[in-house]
Order: sequence, then C-alpha cells, then structure tokens
Amino acid sequence: MKGYPEPVERLIESLQRMPGIGRRSATRLAFHLLKADEQEAQALAKAVLDVKQEVVCCPICWHLAEEQPCCICADPARDASCVLVVEQPRDLIGLEATGLHRGVYHVMTGRLDPLGGVGPEDLTIASLLDRVDTPVNNARGERIEEVILGLSPTLEGDTTAHYLAELLEGRTVRVTRLARGLPSGSSLEFATPAMLADALLGRRSVARGS
Amino acid sequence: MKGYPEPVERLIESLQRMPGIGRRSATRLAFHLLKADEQEAQALAKAVLDVKQEVVCCPICWHLAEEQPCCICADPARDASCVLVVEQPRDLIGLEATGLHRGVYHVMTGRLDPLGGVGPEDLTIASLLDRVDTPVNNARGERIEEVILGLSPTLEGDTTAHYLAELLEGRTVRVTRLARGLPSGSSLEFATPAMLADALLGRRSVARGS
Repeated sequence: MKGYPEPVERLIESLQRMPGIGRRSATRLAFHLLKADEQEAQALAKAVLDVKQEVVCCPICWHLAEEQPCCICADPARDASCVLVVEQPRDLIGLEATGLHRGVYHVMTGRLDPLGGVGPEDLTIASLLDRVDTPVNNARGERIEEVILGLSPTLEGDTTAHYLAELLEGRTVRVTRLARGLPSGSSLEFATPAMLADALLGRRSVARGS
Repeated sequence: MKGYPEPVERLIESLQRMPGIGRRSATRLAFHLLKADEQEAQALAKAVLDVKQEVVCCPICWHLAEEQPCCICADPARDASCVLVVEQPRDLIGLEATGLHRGVYHVMTGRLDPLGGVGPEDLTIASLLDRVDTPVNNARGERIEEVILGLSPTLEGDTTAHYLAELLEGRTVRVTRLARGLPSGSSLEFATPAMLADALLGRRSVARGS
C-alpha cells in the first residue's frame, strides 16, 4: 500500500489546490476533518457550495453581494456622489470598518499588471466611467462629484491609479487619492526610504494651539 | 454593512475552525474558492463529505481504511508476527514508504499525555494486548513474535513506549524500538545535546574491511 486511502488522498489533493496550502498542511487539515465531528465537515462542505451559489457581484459597484444591487449601493443613506475605488472586496471591507466613508464604492476586481497579463479590459474600468458619465442612480438625479482612488501604494496599484486619473481628467469630477506616509503605530527606524519620502513630501502643517 | 456577505462569512468561519488557519488565511482561502471554478469547489465539498463516509478504522490495526480489515492486515504476504506500533496513520505512511517493514502495524491513535487528558484508555492499547495474546489471524495460527515500538522520540512518545514496554514485559514477545541518533543528512553542528547523547549511547561498531 502506498499512501492514504483514496478518499483521504482526494481530500488532500482538493485542499492542496488552495493558495498557501502545501502537501503537509493539506494532510494536517485532512486529518483534522477526519477526526472532526460529522457536523463540522458538513458545515464546511455546505459553506463551500453556498458561497458559489449565493454570492454574486453587485452590478453597480462589483462588490460581493447576496442581492443585486448590494446593500451599500441600495442604501439611500449613502452618498452616491462620492465613489471610493478599491482593488478588491477585501480592501472595501477594511475601509468600511473605519466607518469614515459615507459614500459608495467601486471594486476594480484587480489592478493593472501588464506583465501578469492583466489589462484595462480585465478590470471594471468601463463600468466606472459609465457611472461617472451618467446621473447616479438615486431620486435626486445627481452626478458623481468625487472619485477617491483607494488603490494599494504598490507599483501595480500606482499604475492603475495613474491610468484611472488620466481617464477621469477630462470629466467634471474631482479625483483624489488616499494619503501616503508613515503607517500609524510603526517605528520610524523601520520605515523604508519610500515610506520616508512619502512622509516628507506629504507633510502637513501642525495647527498651532491645537 | 459590516464584513462580507453572509455566505462568505460562513465559509470563512468554517475554514477557520481548521488547525493553523487564522482569520486571514481563511479569508484568502474563501476568496480563492469564490474565484475558483464551480468544479473545484464541488470537488472539495465532495471530498470533505466522502472522507467522513468512506473512511473507516481497520478493526485490527486501527489504520485508516476503506475496507475492514485494511489492505495491509488483509495482505497474506505481510508477516503478521511482527507488529510495528505507531502513534498515528501519518507515521505509518512514512514508515511504509521506506519499504523496509514487511510486517503489520498497530496505530495507537495518539500518545499518552496525562496533562492533556490522554490516558491509556484513550489509546488502542487494550486492542494491542489482545493481538499479542491471541494467535494472529492467519492460516498458520502463529503468534506475534516481535513488537517494534515506533513512537516519536519525544517526552509523550517515550512515556507511551515505556508504558507499552512494561505491559508487554511478562509476555513471550520480543519488544524493540526504532533507533535514535543523528538524523541522516543533518550537520553535526546543529544537533541538539539530546541527539548527540542518543548518538553516543547508541554507537555501533564499524565492520572492518567493509
């Protein structure tokens, strides 16, 4: 006999297809599931299937949603004239958790990466321009006034941001980007030259007496 | 809106129950499954369910099996009079891969860990003694002649091995244990004092002229 019983091997192989899970981790997880009670295994299997069937993309902002449009786009209390552009749903969740953005979002579903074969047509750029060009979908019929570029401060993120900024330049919309500088809670001695450059170039005056 | 759509949250929670998978890894895996094709997700869900339904424990050696008894115990070519005792199926697979053991196995399904609440009654010790005391299940009606203790060279493994050795002492069976020493392929400078002690105490004479 070589290896585990066939169902165990098949589970290990299935688990191994996931990112960051090697043969060793997959084996550990498979053994956990073998030992776990029936209920936990069933819950996992169901969750995997449900996520494929019940989750859709919001046709307006491309965020993950259970309904169309998503609950942020459908919320009349959100300011539909201010759109925060992010790379992926994960980023949206992080920004939403700050509670500071009262506008809506637009998920790029990626970032430009010519070497990796990701071009503008692979992202939701056309849909963003559509949103900017047409009155926003609310009773007041107003247009998008501000587009906040919330892309990652990386080479690909910056490329995407520049590309979007150029496309939006001719339009009557204010384009802003998230601030760059020292990460809160960090120690200056561990800051990279790029972080320090951002921090210097983006320095703000300190209000007196405050 | 807080967090991801409910099906995504449920998947993250299910994944997070597995060992070594934190919130961050679980989220990454969930997003992989969201992006993966339907087929991959279905294969994973099926593999999880199958492993619970199709895999059983061999009633003789407690190894994972699809049939009872397992294919090793059922193999007439294996020497049923020599039993290699291991902690878990993973260890069995590793030893089996060497191709050097032609006998059978006995899986303890764990090791003694009084602090962790694992006592002798939680392991398959009674079943091992039964095997030693009764003629082995083959046509020749012979008994088990050698029990090789293949437990991990750790505190718990050694405790388990000593416990088993004491129980087997009064019986007409030869008890051996796996050799301890320097791990093959390692560098002496990284060996721990415990490894070096084992290597010194277990030193073997070098045959002349060979």
